[in-house]
Amino acid sequence: MAEKKVTRQEDYATWYNDLVYKADLAEHSDVRGCMVIKPYGYAIWENMRDVLDAKFKETGHSNAYFPLFIPKSYLSKEAAHVDGFAKECAVVTHYRLKNAEDGSGVIVDPDAKLQEELIVRPTSETIIWNSYKNWIQSYRDLPILINQWANVVRWEMRTRLFLRTAEFLWQEGHTAHATKTEAIAEAEQMLDVYAEFAENYMAMPVLKGRKTASERFAGAEDTLCIEALMQDGKALQAGTSHFLGQNFAKAFEVKFADKEGKLDYVWATSWGVSTRLMGALIMTHSDDEGLVVPPALAPIQVVGVPIYRTEDELAQIDAKFQLLAQEFKAKGIRFKYDNDDNRRPGWKFAEYETKGVPVRLAMGPRDLENGKIEVARRDTKSKETLDFANLAVAIQALLQDIQQNLLQRAKDFRAANTHTIDTYDQFKIDIEKGGFFLAHWDGTPETEERVKQETKATIRCIPFDQAPEPGFCMVTGKPSVGRVVFAKAY
Amino acid sequence: MAEKKVTRQEDYATWYNDLVYKADLAEHSDVRGCMVIKPYGYAIWENMRDVLDAKFKETGHSNAYFPLFIPKSYLSKEAAHVDGFAKECAVVTHYRLKNAEDGSGVIVDPDAKLQEELIVRPTSETIIWNSYKNWIQSYRDLPILINQWANVVRWEMRTRLFLRTAEFLWQEGHTAHATKTEAIAEAEQMLDVYAEFAENYMAMPVLKGRKTASERFAGAEDTLCIEALMQDGKALQAGTSHFLGQNFAKAFEVKFADKEGKLDYVWATSWGVSTRLMGALIMTHSDDEGLVVPPALAPIQVVGVPIYRTEDELAQIDAKFQLLAQEFKAKGIRFKYDNDDNRRPGWKFAEYETKGVPVRLAMGPRDLENGKIEVARRDTKSKETLDFANLAVAIQALLQDIQQNLLQRAKDFRAANTHTIDTYDQFKIDIEKGGFFLAHWDGTPETEERVKQETKATIRCIPFDQAPEPGFCMVTGKPSVGRVVFAKAY
Repeated sequence: MAEKKVTRQEDYATWYNDLVYKADLAEHSDVRGCMVIKPYGYAIWENMRDVLDAKFKETGHSNAYFPLFIPKSYLSKEAAHVDGFAKECAVVTHYRLKNAEDGSGVIVDPDAKLQEELIVRPTSETIIWNSYKNWIQSYRDLPILINQWANVVRWEMRTRLFLRTAEFLWQEGHTAHATKTEAIAEAEQMLDVYAEFAENYMAMPVLKGRKTASERFAGAEDTLCIEALMQDGKALQAGTSHFLGQNFAKAFEVKFADKEGKLDYVWATSWGVSTRLMGALIMTHSDDEGLVVPPALAPIQVVGVPIYRTEDELAQIDAKFQLLAQEFKAKGIRFKYDNDDNRRPGWKFAEYETKGVPVRLAMGPRDLENGKIEVARRDTKSKETLDFANLAVAIQALLQDIQQNLLQRAKDFRAANTHTIDTYDQFKIDIEKGGFFLAHWDGTPETEERVKQETKATIRCIPFDQAPEPGFCMVTGKPSVGRVVFAKAY
Repeated sequence: MAEKKVTRQEDYATWYNDLVYKADLAEHSDVRGCMVIKPYGYAIWENMRDVLDAKFKETGHSNAYFPLFIPKSYLSKEAAHVDGFAKECAVVTHYRLKNAEDGSGVIVDPDAKLQEELIVRPTSETIIWNSYKNWIQSYRDLPILINQWANVVRWEMRTRLFLRTAEFLWQEGHTAHATKTEAIAEAEQMLDVYAEFAENYMAMPVLKGRKTASERFAGAEDTLCIEALMQDGKALQAGTSHFLGQNFAKAFEVKFADKEGKLDYVWATSWGVSTRLMGALIMTHSDDEGLVVPPALAPIQVVGVPIYRTEDELAQIDAKFQLLAQEFKAKGIRFKYDNDDNRRPGWKFAEYETKGVPVRLAMGPRDLENGKIEVARRDTKSKETLDFANLAVAIQALLQDIQQNLLQRAKDFRAANTHTIDTYDQFKIDIEKGGFFLAHWDGTPETEERVKQETKATIRCIPFDQAPEPGFCMVTGKPSVGRVVFAKAY
């Protein structure tokens, strides 16, 4: 509690890392690049997962599970895909250890070498399409609408908790369709699901758009994305939905007979969000005191802390809080009562502030006598005193208000940090301040690459929600059909 | 539908494998030993997982997530543990692929060799205790009650869908305690959770007991287990709960200061159930027509099938089923209405029978006129005609009855196939018929091993629920303090 906290202003990266540790969300493991997600962090992820899972099911998807291992040859079947993933994968080459003959410990048994190496899945298109091949014969077998919750591994060299780790948790949807139109509609639908989740649960506004060709998923014909703006002015790609065309169907020879019996390759999508969303959540709302969690995803929405000197006082306050707990439960409010006698109220206040619990209740003997309770909100740090009567209703309204306030604050921040810009000279100066920059681009990968080299900014997306506005590329002066969004990104 | 189904009598192993395929539960993947869990199979697993997860949380546990990879040296820190798991593990040795110089495809990049090999977790005691080391200083940090839902890999040479696969899904609880008594109580509590789940949800009676020393988990001081009896007379270990003593705390140097400041090693448990439970569920209840799923775990509890000739008839039946669907939903009954016009009723009847849907409703124009519906139950294959009035209530009661009946049937089967036996000669004959055999054993691993070598039967457990009964070992005639349970096992 007395520890000095590094502020966002002082050192954003350190602030982030410290916060993840202090709020007990996750920590680095001794295994290079892999994190341990601690119970409190995992509880937030579980809430995210449960909401998303329900949305996937509402839109007709089922969960399934495919193998962790992908034979090396499968990865190679789709040319762009292997280029994108071969450079950063964990390779299983043996299937046994044995005792070293010199007694020095266990060693890899050279006699247990696999004939074909297995890759720990970085994503599952190849292993899944290898199965779909056997599941699809005719249009009657389509669509296939499957999602998988799984761990994946990408051998990242520079890792940051939640944002970029060698192993991470995610969901990956993989669908198969009879027509191009249907597959595109699916990819768009799932992007909408993600955007709706980001706004209404994470209280995080996102831009919807498509990636440029050079930023596409390896193997996709079109990559749709949601992009959020973090408090340090950097963009974060929060979810992607890919229209894969017939690329994987061709790589794995997956054809179907239509109603007339004509054979054609199957159309595909894939879409995913990961534990990276935890990083986005943290960096959208948290402050120098610690985590701020939107009520919709908070494992603990309301915490109650008794203020007392004697055991008798505590007993009376306990009794009142037990009654309140029942009222909260009836309203579906996730409430925790912390009457741990080993910790002082001040310690608890600091603890739940660090952990981002949206509402804190405190009650002392005087409050109890007066039928009042102190209510502190985490987002604005304001306090008020409320009557016991109808407290649960008031708290419910307060939680909704906090949820709305967080979204509005994030929207305001984004609006204040979104700029329209027309000259490259000015862009090079302003981009250093962070934010989204709406600028004209000539549509060539060469210009995109030049901007990246010179400023480290990338095109985050070609946004959907934008009136057509012809203009001239800020770099080359060549014609442009509309503005794209540049930013530095995580 | 016209395919000949292999019966249990003809060939139990083929019956099982065919059933898993025909009921669309899972299939072998092209990756050696790894299965694909298909949506219908996964939906049953999800139901199991959700029930168990709620029970773990009710008993004070939280979920977390630890790395997939375990450094080879960690596995070696607990001597018995490495002996138990080194022989069957997937070893990651490299972290990159590259294009072969001869253009023949991608190969493992020899420059990307790991300094220390990583093992894909076969179980997570070592990686978790390596974390707990940093989490535990004093008694105030205890107990730690954590569970993880994860995939694990054990390189099994002979695999069978759900029962034994190289990769499987499971949960693993890992707890840390200040006292031996508390750790033992935890291990016992979780065994009770498993047993209660097996009986009340899977409708599968289980024997609770402890393993003999030679059957213990590698690294445990005591392994408690639940054992079920399959229809072919073989036993199946359905869940285990281990008292680990201070073995892992010693291996990873995890000490805590008690209230007096005295340092001691921490006490541990671990406990787990896996997708193997799917195999147990299938083999406890299913019959020659296909899967039988207890209502408590059925993804679809009730299916409705319209019988019609004209579109007009269908429209009327549809309307009635929509109303019934609302009534069912209000009662929390998982109902599916299948009015797919591409399939005939007979095909649907066979399909849902194969998939083990507990109750099938069929309604034709005449039924509609008479306000009646045909209700068929999967377990007994009996049919009755019920009135529309209060149908949801009647169906709810029927589902409960089916659940009870399945449990009773399994109990009766087990009772009929549990034998008390006193001579080894008779044992050698009777064991071939299958079943549980209660026999005296002298308590030595030598006798246990001899029985295994000569009959392939093992001691499944030393059962808890048994009056003390001194006697003489059926093999050696030496004294015995009570009977143990022998069986051939999966």
